[in-house]
Amino acid sequence: MTYEAPIKDLMFNIAHVAPGSVDLEMAAAVLEEFGRFCAEEIAPLNASGDREGAHFDKGQVKTPAGFQAAYSKFVAMGWQGLPHPSEYGGQDLPRVVGAAAGEIINAANLSFALCPLLTDGAIEALLRFGSPEIKATYLPKLVSGAWTGTMNLTEPQAGSDLALLRTRAEGQADGAYRITGTKIFITYGEHDLAENIVHLVLARTPDAPKGIKGISLFLVPKFLVGGNAVLGPRNRVRCQSIEHKLGVRASPTCVLEFEGATGFLIGRENAGLEYMFTMMNAARFAVGVQGVAIGERAHQQALSYAKTRLQGRPVDGSAPGAVAIIQHPDVRRMLAHMRATTEACRALAAFTAGWQDRAETTESPDERADALAVAEFLVPLVKGFCTEMSLQTTSTGVQIYGGMGFIEETGAAQHTRDARILPIYEGTTAIQANDLLGRKTLRDGGATAGRIAAMIAQTEQELRQGSQVAQEIALRLSDAREDFQRVVAHLVDVSPKDVNAAYAAAVPYLMLAGNLVAGWQLARSLLVAEAALARGEDSAFMSAKIATARFYAHHILIETALQHVRVVQGATSLLDTAL
Amino acid sequence: MTYEAPIKDLMFNIAHVAPGSVDLEMAAAVLEEFGRFCAEEIAPLNASGDREGAHFDKGQVKTPAGFQAAYSKFVAMGWQGLPHPSEYGGQDLPRVVGAAAGEIINAANLSFALCPLLTDGAIEALLRFGSPEIKATYLPKLVSGAWTGTMNLTEPQAGSDLALLRTRAEGQADGAYRITGTKIFITYGEHDLAENIVHLVLARTPDAPKGIKGISLFLVPKFLVGGNAVLGPRNRVRCQSIEHKLGVRASPTCVLEFEGATGFLIGRENAGLEYMFTMMNAARFAVGVQGVAIGERAHQQALSYAKTRLQGRPVDGSAPGAVAIIQHPDVRRMLAHMRATTEACRALAAFTAGWQDRAETTESPDERADALAVAEFLVPLVKGFCTEMSLQTTSTGVQIYGGMGFIEETGAAQHTRDARILPIYEGTTAIQANDLLGRKTLRDGGATAGRIAAMIAQTEQELRQGSQVAQEIALRLSDAREDFQRVVAHLVDVSPKDVNAAYAAAVPYLMLAGNLVAGWQLARSLLVAEAALARGEDSAFMSAKIATARFYAHHILIETALQHVRVVQGATSLLDTAL
Repeated sequence: MTYEAPIKDLMFNIAHVAPGSVDLEMAAAVLEEFGRFCAEEIAPLNASGDREGAHFDKGQVKTPAGFQAAYSKFVAMGWQGLPHPSEYGGQDLPRVVGAAAGEIINAANLSFALCPLLTDGAIEALLRFGSPEIKATYLPKLVSGAWTGTMNLTEPQAGSDLALLRTRAEGQADGAYRITGTKIFITYGEHDLAENIVHLVLARTPDAPKGIKGISLFLVPKFLVGGNAVLGPRNRVRCQSIEHKLGVRASPTCVLEFEGATGFLIGRENAGLEYMFTMMNAARFAVGVQGVAIGERAHQQALSYAKTRLQGRPVDGSAPGAVAIIQHPDVRRMLAHMRATTEACRALAAFTAGWQDRAETTESPDERADALAVAEFLVPLVKGFCTEMSLQTTSTGVQIYGGMGFIEETGAAQHTRDARILPIYEGTTAIQANDLLGRKTLRDGGATAGRIAAMIAQTEQELRQGSQVAQEIALRLSDAREDFQRVVAHLVDVSPKDVNAAYAAAVPYLMLAGNLVAGWQLARSLLVAEAALARGEDSAFMSAKIATARFYAHHILIETALQHVRVVQGATSLLDTAL
Repeated sequence: MTYEAPIKDLMFNIAHVAPGSVDLEMAAAVLEEFGRFCAEEIAPLNASGDREGAHFDKGQVKTPAGFQAAYSKFVAMGWQGLPHPSEYGGQDLPRVVGAAAGEIINAANLSFALCPLLTDGAIEALLRFGSPEIKATYLPKLVSGAWTGTMNLTEPQAGSDLALLRTRAEGQADGAYRITGTKIFITYGEHDLAENIVHLVLARTPDAPKGIKGISLFLVPKFLVGGNAVLGPRNRVRCQSIEHKLGVRASPTCVLEFEGATGFLIGRENAGLEYMFTMMNAARFAVGVQGVAIGERAHQQALSYAKTRLQGRPVDGSAPGAVAIIQHPDVRRMLAHMRATTEACRALAAFTAGWQDRAETTESPDERADALAVAEFLVPLVKGFCTEMSLQTTSTGVQIYGGMGFIEETGAAQHTRDARILPIYEGTTAIQANDLLGRKTLRDGGATAGRIAAMIAQTEQELRQGSQVAQEIALRLSDAREDFQRVVAHLVDVSPKDVNAAYAAAVPYLMLAGNLVAGWQLARSLLVAEAALARGEDSAFMSAKIATARFYAHHILIETALQHVRVVQGATSLLDTAL
């Protein structure tokens, strides 16, 4: 199936949804070029890569046919460097443009895109916490994509719970460490795309405190690196096997054995978790964008099938024989749901990236703190809500195909298989929800949540002064925002009294908040679209945006009412249920 | 993963949820024995069968290792005949017991169970419409399981839309027909489990009217059958290939080529669709039960994992280190959701089967017509609601496993892959919803829907006189029932004016009705359980039933409010959405 990057919608969000201002001409030029590259070089490898899968043989991993050539072009064209500092060879693009580019490459091929996604995370961590020597040695190679990065957290007994980590790091006389242990679920932990792999590894030094306060972060290269980044001998880390997975099968998921491998401490000992969180925050946001991406790909494919598959007479009798199934009301419903969900999640991601940009570029410390709080509140929504919705969207894509959707050759099923990991890796939805509830909501007594609610109320004001449709949406948005505020108040109140009741409601709270903030972005988009329409600009696109915002408000945003009941009235029946 | 048949809950439903009375001792004895057989012989082949898949080679289909031996035992023990007439060698069990047995075998192994499921459909059709000769020749062999049955509807251009069928049937001098055409998606269309396969095939005679009124039903055996059921020469039907599918991989899904095959007309020419509907109604109900089954299997597996996987400290600080994840509130939420959904869907299926039994056994024509109308209203709910919910339940099962759920070896992913066909085959959810709306609701002006609402209101009365929990649930049930009645009134009203608006709401209407009727059964169950508890009977089981009913009411039944808004206020925004 072909893929076409939704440049117009991505640019609409950059221009109108994200706070802050961006050089729009430059952004459009970059995204168009990248869209062409991904459509032509990366997207065609999506189905074939899934069929073939990654190969493992005696410690070596071979990626599927075409991956090497495509990755070489990716590196040659400098795409890895898009959002990274020019100091290390990057292009210094704002995060909001990087997020758009991230959607494009992930929609083209989720398995392929995982490699650059992990490299981005490693770059992020080294930029913030690496020593000058480490930065000078590794960053240019990572930013160019010549070398790739990995995150090594999980061990068989330590998944969501990093306190259970056992990998050991013993300091050596030369200042380096010897790393010993087994890591699992290491994405692109071994592969044939790049000449070196830079593993960032969590491990414990011998005298470290127990639990999460005794974890340090180490850089462990596959090949040791000499002066001028010349590759030296192979380090003592090897790939023991790769997993047989439900989806993203072209991407190798490795068991890595560290057998006294040479590692270099990043930052201070025992501060590894804090550093890893930085990397994870970037990765969590990126995984949320993967949710948008796979939804977009599934929607494009289902839409194209629905336009060509002839089946059934229309219920209104408007044709004597079978018509394209897109004319049947329920197929319309499913396509509208896929579209509205995808556009809302895309807007949520752009909005969040814009706040991240603001947090990094604003001069005033107060404004920076404010922007940072908002951005950090939004990250679990992007990760949790966009990925959960991608399960629905990709499943609906299969449903539109009917029986053909169940046949692997049509490709619809691959999207559901690929999407299934998104609400799990980089922290499950429950982990995101606990982060949203504990660190982002309860810790400041609901202040940031209130700050967001106030911004939403402002949009409601604007909607109420607008068209009839805008006024309709103001009502829905206002109901949803009130649900949110009641839920926040309830959680702040109940948490000190009954912490289990609060956390039993964490996921419904996250889904409510994600839905609200995403729907809010479509409501803001509607205002922009109505103004553009009034000026006679791009009427097809703007009318479609208005219709999508309206559908979202009436069919999806209303779900906040349900989550509100679950949070406020549901704890007793939940905690009393026999298991 | 092991499987244990939930005999206690199945028997509770047979005794208390289904209308009518059944010999409980006999039912329990049969189900316990069948549960043991399925757990020991069929369930262990579920994962291995998925890994190996069905094999195709030059027209032959080989089932995975172990399937032949297990099927032989299945036949030898007479399990195929459970719900069928003793006249043909069956055991005459009521449908409500047959449905319970169906859940058990499908939970053990969905791929395996599809073969008997299709045979059941063929038996049903021949019992009702076969000539005395056909019955005498084929039914004993089908009822014993020595031969198996298939349904041949779909062709490449004719899926949901049977009007587009092209397979031809030309009458011969001897009264037989020559059948020519290609059928696809034929489950167990070819295999090595039985000595003969009885295909029921839809085809057109040369002078047949166009569209669905020109379709006839033919019996086409794989081997022609002589006197005393002796097998004769191979018929001209061959398997061209089998599909590469997302799930139920151990079951062969065949492309069958009929090349002038000898077929025998069932009933009258051009009445094939009516006959096929009989068969489909049985099959649709059975597929709904598959939804319950796969939910149960996924729940058993997730529950067992959650009890043993140690990860994370409890939020309430009740333990100093990692505890079994079942102690975390969100894992409890997910497990409670899986359990409540599965029990509610199981109760819905038992209730429906009970009405089917009543429709078949009641003497009074009025009562029979009433029971038939209720049963027919319920079938699309069982098929549509139970299968859609199985997507959620099996997906939640993966989520509870976290990263391990994405690894095929753990088996959690297989359940989601297997479940994904359920809302598609035997009529997609939209087809069920159109049936519910058009034939079961609008045709009688909402009378049957009203009949059901009145029964629910009666249960509300009883709940209001009960415990505090019963009174709570009465409120939820009453809200949901009122949502249902408003939706029915709206659809009856809007349909003549705007048929597209009515059918755009068909699936939300089905989900509302399914949720309501399933939740109603749990509410009825709660009344039974409270009475039993008061008598001191089986307090663990009865307390759990009460808690589950309560969870369902507060977390799931409340979704009717949302569907109500979608149906009543959602049509304009849906039909106006640009696609």
